[in-house]
Amino acid sequence: MPVTLLALYRRPEGGAEALDTFLQRYRAEHMPLIERVPGLRASQVERVAQHYAGEDMVMVTRMIFDDRVALDAAMASDEMRQAGRVLRDIAPGLLTLVALEEAGG
Amino acid sequence: MPVTLLALYRRPEGGAEALDTFLQRYRAEHMPLIERVPGLRASQVERVAQHYAGEDMVMVTRMIFDDRVALDAAMASDEMRQAGRVLRDIAPGLLTLVALEEAGG
Repeated sequence: MPVTLLALYRRPEGGAEALDTFLQRYRAEHMPLIERVPGLRASQVERVAQHYAGEDMVMVTRMIFDDRVALDAAMASDEMRQAGRVLRDIAPGLLTLVALEEAGG
Repeated sequence: MPVTLLALYRRPEGGAEALDTFLQRYRAEHMPLIERVPGLRASQVERVAQHYAGEDMVMVTRMIFDDRVALDAAMASDEMRQAGRVLRDIAPGLLTLVALEEAGG
């Protein structure tokens, strides 16, 4: 069963300039590493166009893997560790990261 | 351009029993109303299988609409208002709700 790794990013402090810098570095430095993670089948970056309730999220990235075994291997890979290090530099404390599986009946 | 309405749910207080009750009422009372929202093209409920960082989310629901106009009409519909009322009863304070659009270049 396919598994989705879902990364949610809260708005950085520092206004529009900080947000622009984060988005630019995310695309230029983080995503190229993610795209080299072994077992990644697809990825999709989406921006928050409107906020209705709760946490002030600004971006959501979906990363699809074939199954939990592939996801676990990906999480332990050098590429993912390097991507995580970059993220801690460009978006400290902004990330929520979860693995999703289709809900049964 | 299709628009995704993304609903994220934090873990309710009260342990496994409170979580089971929330998930059961979500499926039995909330989702049937969502499925009647005008303009909804598809919906997908996913459970958090693993938590790596940040907010303690337990469930994520994606609801797809044709465009922002369809989403705005859906948000103003009686069905969505009723679904929102049910949600405030079964999951008070747990919801993060955002609209997502594919990120450009």
